Amino acid sequence: MAIISHEILAQYVYQLLCHAGADPVCAQAVSQSLVEAELRGIATHGVSRLGIYLQRMNAGGIDGGDKVTILSESPSALSIDGGNGFGAHVATYAMERCIPKALETGSCFASVGRSSHFGTAAQYALMATERGCIGIVCTNLTGKIAPYGSTQAYMGTNPIAIAVPSADYPVVLDMTPSVVALGKIILAQKLEKPIPEGWALDNDGNPTTDPTVARAGSLLPLGGAKGSGLAMMIDILSGLLSDGNVGPQIGDLYGDDSVPQGVGHFMGAISVAHFTDLDTFCRRVAQMRQEIKTLPLAAGFQEILLPGERSHQQRLQYLEQGIPVPDAIYQELLSLGAPYGLGL
Amino acid sequence: MAIISHEILAQYVYQLLCHAGADPVCAQAVSQSLVEAELRGIATHGVSRLGIYLQRMNAGGIDGGDKVTILSESPSALSIDGGNGFGAHVATYAMERCIPKALETGSCFASVGRSSHFGTAAQYALMATERGCIGIVCTNLTGKIAPYGSTQAYMGTNPIAIAVPSADYPVVLDMTPSVVALGKIILAQKLEKPIPEGWALDNDGNPTTDPTVARAGSLLPLGGAKGSGLAMMIDILSGLLSDGNVGPQIGDLYGDDSVPQGVGHFMGAISVAHFTDLDTFCRRVAQMRQEIKTLPLAAGFQEILLPGERSHQQRLQYLEQGIPVPDAIYQELLSLGAPYGLGL
Repeated sequence: MAIISHEILAQYVYQLLCHAGADPVCAQAVSQSLVEAELRGIATHGVSRLGIYLQRMNAGGIDGGDKVTILSESPSALSIDGGNGFGAHVATYAMERCIPKALETGSCFASVGRSSHFGTAAQYALMATERGCIGIVCTNLTGKIAPYGSTQAYMGTNPIAIAVPSADYPVVLDMTPSVVALGKIILAQKLEKPIPEGWALDNDGNPTTDPTVARAGSLLPLGGAKGSGLAMMIDILSGLLSDGNVGPQIGDLYGDDSVPQGVGHFMGAISVAHFTDLDTFCRRVAQMRQEIKTLPLAAGFQEILLPGERSHQQRLQYLEQGIPVPDAIYQELLSLGAPYGLGL
Repeated sequence: MAIISHEILAQYVYQLLCHAGADPVCAQAVSQSLVEAELRGIATHGVSRLGIYLQRMNAGGIDGGDKVTILSESPSALSIDGGNGFGAHVATYAMERCIPKALETGSCFASVGRSSHFGTAAQYALMATERGCIGIVCTNLTGKIAPYGSTQAYMGTNPIAIAVPSADYPVVLDMTPSVVALGKIILAQKLEKPIPEGWALDNDGNPTTDPTVARAGSLLPLGGAKGSGLAMMIDILSGLLSDGNVGPQIGDLYGDDSVPQGVGHFMGAISVAHFTDLDTFCRRVAQMRQEIKTLPLAAGFQEILLPGERSHQQRLQYLEQGIPVPDAIYQELLSLGAPYGLGL
C-alpha cells in the first residue's frame, strides 16, 4: 500500500491526462474529481477509474477536448451539451454556471446531455455549498435496476446528491435508488465473496447471491416501488430533459470504448440567502446535526453518522496523512504514466 | 358503504368549512385537497381528515383565514409565511405562485413556513404538470423516524413528490423516507393486526410487531442510512429554509388542537420548455413508461405499475362511478354538518 499526498496524486493524474491528449481544463476537472473521491474515502470512484477514462478517450468514446456548449439559457435554466466530454469536466462546467445564476435569481437548474461517467454526484453538489447554496445533482447511468414488478434491468443505479451548507461542514447525501450501489457487487466479485439475498437478480430474474451472476443480471430497487420510482424520475430528469438517452440506451462505462456513453445529468443550485438568513440557516443545520448525533444509540452502533460525516472525517485525515493507494492501483498508475516518461 | 359523486362531496366539504368559519378560498383548497385524495384512492388523506381539521380550526391550532403572505420574492425564489393556515390552502397558494415564475425564468422554488398538514404532496406537484412544468414538493412532519443508528424518533415521515408531465397522464412519485408510511401503522392498529418486523421500533428502540406500540415508538428509515439521510434533507429544506421548525419541534396533527403545528414545505416548478421541446419530452415520457410496462413480469405480479398509474386509474373510475365512503366516515361527515343544517 503506497501513501501519496493528494497534491502529488492530483498533479500526476493531471499531467498524465494532458500528455495523453486531454485539454488542460478537462484534465484539471478529472484529476480533481478522482482525487476528491479518494480524499473522501470513495475509492470506487477514485484513481482506479483513470485507466478506463484514458482507454475511452483513446478509442474515441470520450472527447478529451473542451467542447461543452450552452444550447439555451434563461435566468434560471441552462440546457447544456457535453460534447461527449469527460463527465467531471462537463458537470463542473454546468454547476459553475448554475451557481451565479442561483445567486442572482434564487435558483437555477441545468439539464446536461451527451456527457459521460462523472464520478461521485456529491462533489458537484458540494460546489454549491461553498457559495451559500444548496446543491442538487443527479445523473443517469446504463440500465442495471429491474423496475419494481419486473425481472429485467431498465433504469441505471442513478445516484442523487443533495448538499447543504452548514456552520461546521456541509451535510451531503449521495445515494443510489438501488438496495446497494453497483460498486458493492463489483467489490464482492473481486473478493470472490457471495452477496446477501435481496441485492440482485440473475438474468432470468431469480434471486442470486453470486456477484458475477448479479452483474450480468439486475439490481433490486431500494424499497421496491419507492426506489424504482426514484430511479425512473432521475432518469427522466437526467435523460429526457436533456433530450438524451434513458435506461438501456445509455452506454456502459466498461462497454464499447469507441462509443460515447450518452449520459445525462440534471443539477442545480438554490441560494439560501434568497429564502432566509444564511448564517442563521448554517448555524441551525449544525445544531440539528448535533441534536441528532446525541440521540440514544441503537444496538451495534458506536456513533450516529450523518450524511457526509464519514467522508468529511476521512478527507481531513487523508489531507494530512496522504491517500493510501493499493499496490495494484499504484502499479496501474505507473504503467499508465510510463509511455510519457511520468513517474509517481 | 355510501357512493358519493366527487362534486357533491366537494361541495359538502366546502360548505361545511365555510359554515364553520373558514375563508371561502381556504375552504375551496381544503375541499379540493381532500376530495382529490379520495379520487386518487388515497383515502388516508381524504375526507376522514376533515374532523381533525375542523377541530383544530375551532381550537385555534389552524387559522381559517386567508393569511398567507409573501415575505420575500426574487425571480426564482419565494419565501412564504403560511400564517398557520390550512396546509392545503398554503401549499396551493405557494405552487400557484411558483409556476408562473418558473415559466418566466425556467425554475422557481418556495420555502413555506408556519403551515399545517397539507394532505398528499403529489397533488401540489401535479399542479405544475398542468402548465408544462415538473413539480417537486416536500413537507416536514412531526418526528416519527428514528435516524439510522438511533432508537429515538427525530425526523418526520417527510414525504417528497415529483410529478412529470407526459403525453398521456403525468408520472408522479410520492414517497416517504420510512420503510412504510405512518398510515399503514394506523390502519393495522384499527384492524388490530400485527405489523411485520422491520417497520418500527418500540419506545425503548426494540423491534416491534404491535402497531399501537409502534405508534408510540418510532418508524424505521427506508434502507437505513439512505432513508434517514433523505428524511433529514427534506426536514432541512422544509423546516430550516423557511426559518421554521424541524423534527420533534413540529406539532402532531393529532396533538394539542390549540397549538399551530408549525409545519414547513419546500416546493417548486421546473419549466420543461426552458430545457427541451415540451411536446417531444411528453411523448418520450409516455414512451418510456410503455417500454417499462412491457418488460418481463416478476413472479407474483400481473402488471408493472409505474408511479402515479394506480391513482390515475382510480381517479378515472371514481370520477365516473362516484367515491366510495365507508359508513363510519359517512356518519362522521353527517354529524359534522348537522350543527349547520347541512345534509349529504
